[in-house]
Amino acid sequence: MSLDYIDEIVSSAEATRESRRAFLRHGAIAAIAGTVLAACKPSSAQKPAQAVSSPPKPAGGATGTDAYTATANVAASAERAAADEMDRMHEAGIKAFPAKTSGRGNQLLAPTMVGGVKVFELNAHKAKWETAPGNFAEAWTYNGMVPGPQIRVREGDRVRVIVKNDLPESTAVHFHGLELPNSQDGVPFITQPPIKPGETFTYEFTAPNPGSHMYHSHHNSTKQVSLGLLGAFIIEPRDKSKDPHADVDHLFILNDGLNGFTINGKGFPATEPIVAKLGQTVRIRFMNEGMMIHPMHLHGMHMTVIAKDGWTQPAPWRCDTLNVAPGERYDVLVKCNNPGTWAFHCHILPHAESDHVMFGMVTALIVQS
Amino acid sequence: MSLDYIDEIVSSAEATRESRRAFLRHGAIAAIAGTVLAACKPSSAQKPAQAVSSPPKPAGGATGTDAYTATANVAASAERAAADEMDRMHEAGIKAFPAKTSGRGNQLLAPTMVGGVKVFELNAHKAKWETAPGNFAEAWTYNGMVPGPQIRVREGDRVRVIVKNDLPESTAVHFHGLELPNSQDGVPFITQPPIKPGETFTYEFTAPNPGSHMYHSHHNSTKQVSLGLLGAFIIEPRDKSKDPHADVDHLFILNDGLNGFTINGKGFPATEPIVAKLGQTVRIRFMNEGMMIHPMHLHGMHMTVIAKDGWTQPAPWRCDTLNVAPGERYDVLVKCNNPGTWAFHCHILPHAESDHVMFGMVTALIVQS
Amino acid sequence: MSLDYIDEIVSSAEATRESRRAFLRHGAIAAIAGTVLAACKPSSAQKPAQAVSSPPKPAGGATGTDAYTATANVAASAERAAADEMDRMHEAGIKAFPAKTSGRGNQLLAPTMVGGVKVFELNAHKAKWETAPGNFAEAWTYNGMVPGPQIRVREGDRVRVIVKNDLPESTAVHFHGLELPNSQDGVPFITQPPIKPGETFTYEFTAPNPGSHMYHSHHNSTKQVSLGLLGAFIIEPRDKSKDPHADVDHLFILNDGLNGFTINGKGFPATEPIVAKLGQTVRIRFMNEGMMIHPMHLHGMHMTVIAKDGWTQPAPWRCDTLNVAPGERYDVLVKCNNPGTWAFHCHILPHAESDHVMFGMVTALIVQS
Repeated sequence: MSLDYIDEIVSSAEATRESRRAFLRHGAIAAIAGTVLAACKPSSAQKPAQAVSSPPKPAGGATGTDAYTATANVAASAERAAADEMDRMHEAGIKAFPAKTSGRGNQLLAPTMVGGVKVFELNAHKAKWETAPGNFAEAWTYNGMVPGPQIRVREGDRVRVIVKNDLPESTAVHFHGLELPNSQDGVPFITQPPIKPGETFTYEFTAPNPGSHMYHSHHNSTKQVSLGLLGAFIIEPRDKSKDPHADVDHLFILNDGLNGFTINGKGFPATEPIVAKLGQTVRIRFMNEGMMIHPMHLHGMHMTVIAKDGWTQPAPWRCDTLNVAPGERYDVLVKCNNPGTWAFHCHILPHAESDHVMFGMVTALIVQS
Repeated sequence: MSLDYIDEIVSSAEATRESRRAFLRHGAIAAIAGTVLAACKPSSAQKPAQAVSSPPKPAGGATGTDAYTATANVAASAERAAADEMDRMHEAGIKAFPAKTSGRGNQLLAPTMVGGVKVFELNAHKAKWETAPGNFAEAWTYNGMVPGPQIRVREGDRVRVIVKNDLPESTAVHFHGLELPNSQDGVPFITQPPIKPGETFTYEFTAPNPGSHMYHSHHNSTKQVSLGLLGAFIIEPRDKSKDPHADVDHLFILNDGLNGFTINGKGFPATEPIVAKLGQTVRIRFMNEGMMIHPMHLHGMHMTVIAKDGWTQPAPWRCDTLNVAPGERYDVLVKCNNPGTWAFHCHILPHAESDHVMFGMVTALIVQS
Repeated sequence: MSLDYIDEIVSSAEATRESRRAFLRHGAIAAIAGTVLAACKPSSAQKPAQAVSSPPKPAGGATGTDAYTATANVAASAERAAADEMDRMHEAGIKAFPAKTSGRGNQLLAPTMVGGVKVFELNAHKAKWETAPGNFAEAWTYNGMVPGPQIRVREGDRVRVIVKNDLPESTAVHFHGLELPNSQDGVPFITQPPIKPGETFTYEFTAPNPGSHMYHSHHNSTKQVSLGLLGAFIIEPRDKSKDPHADVDHLFILNDGLNGFTINGKGFPATEPIVAKLGQTVRIRFMNEGMMIHPMHLHGMHMTVIAKDGWTQPAPWRCDTLNVAPGERYDVLVKCNNPGTWAFHCHILPHAESDHVMFGMVTALIVQS
C-alpha cells in the first residue's frame, strides 16, 4: 500500500506563485478559445476512418411487401434524421464552448488598505445575469456578479467587509468556515440585527483558520443563496510552505438554484475551462452552494484530495469522482500528465446532459502539450 | 501536514465521566433557556450602530411625474413593509428557541436487571407527537416518544429487549450496526417471523462491537421508520480508555419523513440546543434515519470526526460540514473554544429555512464563557 | 486507536485465485437456491415460541354498547386482515428470493486474442430485459444484457474494444476511471465523432491504472446510461501482490433509471445473493451508474473500504453503511465471520421496501457455516 504520492503533494513549496497570480488576474478564456475548438475537431489520431457505416438494407422486391417496405424505409429514414439532428445539436453546443456571455463571476476583489486593514466592499443588489448564451436570469448579486467577487486574504490579516444592502428585503452575510468571534457570524437575531434594505453593515475580524471558505447570505437563505448571494473567501496560510505548490489555482462554486445548474454562475457551454500546460499541477477548490450533491467527475486524470472544508486531510487520497455536498468544500490537486481536452462534469447525468445538448455542470480541463 | 490534533483526541482518557452522566440524566433545556434568549439579543459588541439607514429618496417635485412618483412610493413602501414583516417572523421564530413542546424523545431507558441481564422494554404504539409548537403528528413510537428511548449498554453486557407490538400492523426491530447472531437481526421472514399486532417478541444477545448504533423497524420500514419507530443504541467500549474524553455527550437523530425535517423528533425552534462551557469538549453522535442526506454545518468551530458507523476512523479528520447519509452514523468531537450561540443546521437550505422562518433541521451549540 | 486490521487486508496475497475464477465463471445462483430458502425459514434457534399472541379482547356484553362493540370488532378484524395480508405479500417476496428471471447481466466477456491484443466486441442494441419476475423493460444494452458484459484485463494488457451501434441513435463509449489517451476517451465532438446508427467504432489502448472502473455511453447519456448502456471494466494490477486476497469477488452496479432501482440490472427478489463460506473474505466492488446516492447497508458484519474509484485508500476504514454517489466506485472487503443470511440493501428505504414487499436495491450476503 504505497503512499509515495504524498511526496508529490507536500514537496515543491518553492512554487512559482507569480505565474498563478498572473493567471488569476488576467483570465484565460480569450487566450485559449482557439485551442479548445482545435481540440474538439477529430484529429487523425482519432481514426474516424474506423467508423464504417452499414447502410439500411435496400428494399426487398416481391409484390405485396412493397407497401410495408416503403413504410419501414420512411420510418427508418425519419429515425435516422432524428438521430442526425440530435448529433447536430450536441455538436453545436460543444463547438460553442467556451461560449461568450456577459458578466463573469468570482473576480478577485482588490481591497482598499485603511490603516493596516484590508477593506472589501460588497453591494447586494439585483442584476440581470446571463447563465448561458441568451439565458438571462434575475439574479441577486454581490457587486453585480455571480458568484460574488472572490475575497482572498492571508491568515492574520485584519479584514473589514462593508455590506450595503440594495435589495428589496433584509439580508446578512455569514462567513462559512471562518472561525470568527460570534458577533461577526452573520446570523440575524442570533448574532446581529438583519441588514435592512438601504442599510450598511460592517464586519471586521482577523482572518482566522486558513482554507477554502465561502461567504453567503444567512437570511431567507434558501431564496437568497439560490439566486446568487454567495462567493468564495480564501484564506492563505501565514506559512506559505503549508500550501502545496500549484501552477494553476482554480475554483468551482457549484449551484443548482433558480438560476439552474451552474459552475461559477454559468452553465455549459458558457462555463470556463481550466487550462494548464503538460506537467503542471492544478489546484481546484470545490465549493457547493446548492441544495443537491454534485459528484464531480474528471476524465483522463485523477484528483488528489488534500483538504476538506479548508482543513488538511490526515492523508491525501485519490479519486476521479468527488462527491461534494451542500456547504462542503474540497481542495484537490491534479497532476496534468495527460494532454488533451478532458470533460469535467457532475456525474448526476441530468445535471449535465439533455437529449439535445450537454448543459449545466459541464466544463473541461485542457492540458496543452 | 501536521497531525498533532490527534493528540487532543486520544489523550484525556481519564475524563470526568460523572459530569457527563449527570448531564444526560437531568437534561439541559430548563437550565439554559434564559441563557439562550440573552445570547439572541444583540449585545453592544455586535455594533448595531454600524447599521446606517439610507431612507428612500423623497418624491421629486415637477408636475407630470407626480403620479408616477406617488405610485413608486406606495410600491416601495409596500415592499419595505413586506421585508419588515419577514424579519418580524424570523425574529419571533428565533426568540422562541428553544421552544417548549410536549414530549421529549431519546430519553435514557433504565434497564431492569434480571439475573445479570439488562432488560429493556419497548412498546410500539401510536402517539400524538408535537414536532414544533402546535404541530401535532400521529407518530408511530417506541414508548410514546420520538426518537424512541436511548438504549445504552457496555460491550459484553448481556442484553434483553422485549418488544410489545401495539400497532395496527406487524413489525420487527433491527439493531442497525450491531453484529449479532443472525436470529436476533430483526428481518421478518429472513431471521424471524414478523411480530403481529398484539404480540410480544424478545431479542437477547451479548452487546457486541461498541459504537453509536441505532435500532428501528425493519418491516414496512419506509413507513414505520419514517413515522418514528427508531432510536439510538449506544454500546460503550469495555475498555473505557478507548473512548475519547468528552464533557458533553450529545446525539442528533436526523429524520425527514412524514413528521417533517427533525433533529431528535423536533423541528426548530423546538429543537434542543447543545450547551457547553468554554474549554469543554462536546461529542456529537450523528445518526441519519431519514431518506435524504443531511450535511450538518456548525458555525464558529470545527468538528473532528473520530468514528464512522461506530468504527474508529484510521485518522481523525476535521470539517465544519458533515454529510450524513441515510443509515450512517458519525461521531465527532468539538473543542468549545469560541464563546457564543452558534447556529448548527443542515446546509440543504430548504431543510432549514423558509421565507418566513428558520425551521426543521436547525439548532445551536451554546458555548458559555 | 488500533490499526491492526490493516494486516488482515494487506496479507494473504498468495490467495487461491482459481476458486474465485471458477465461481465467477459458473455462477452461484443454482447451487445455493436451496440454501437460501432454508435460511429464510425460521429455525428453532429463532425461538418463534417467544411470540405470544394477545388476542383481541372478547366483545363486551351490556346492551346499548353492543352495536358499537360489534362495529369496533369488525374494524379491528379488518385491520388485522390487512396486516396479515401485508405480511403474506412480504413473505411471498422473500420466499421467492433469489427469483429466476430471464437474462443475467455482468457476465465475463472472453476476449479474442489477435496478435497479442485482447479484443472485446460490444454490440449496442435494444432488448427486452426482465428486471424482476414478470417486469419487462425495453432496455438499451451491450450484447443484450444489463449491465453489459464484464470486461476484465490486467494492467499493461493491450486492449481493443469494437463497438457496433445497432441503436436508433448515435452513441459512444467512455471508459470511466481509465486514464487513456485523449482520443480513446469516448466523448463525441470532443474526442471522436459519435458512432452513428449502423456504424462500428474501435477503441484501442494499453490498460492503464488498475482498479474497479466502468464503461458506459457518453452520448445522450442521461437516457442511454439510464436504460442500460453500462458495464464494469476491471483492471487487475500487474503485481498481484498489490491486490488483497479475496475468496469471492463480487460487484454491485447500482442503477435507478427507467428500469427502476436495480443491482446488476435486477430488482429484489431477482437480485443475486453473494455466497461465501464461514471464514472467507468477500470483496465487493460498488459502482453507481444511477442519478442518486445509494448508501448500501450490510447487516451482521462490517465492510472495510480499501479503494475509492480504483485508488487504494491511504488507510482502510470500516463501516456498515457505505454511501455511493453517482460515478463513484468503492472496493470493500468483508470478513465473513458471522453465519447466516444477511440483508444487504440501500438504506434509502423507499429504494428497498414498499408497504407490500421488499423490492429494488435489496440482496443478501449468505455466510454458510
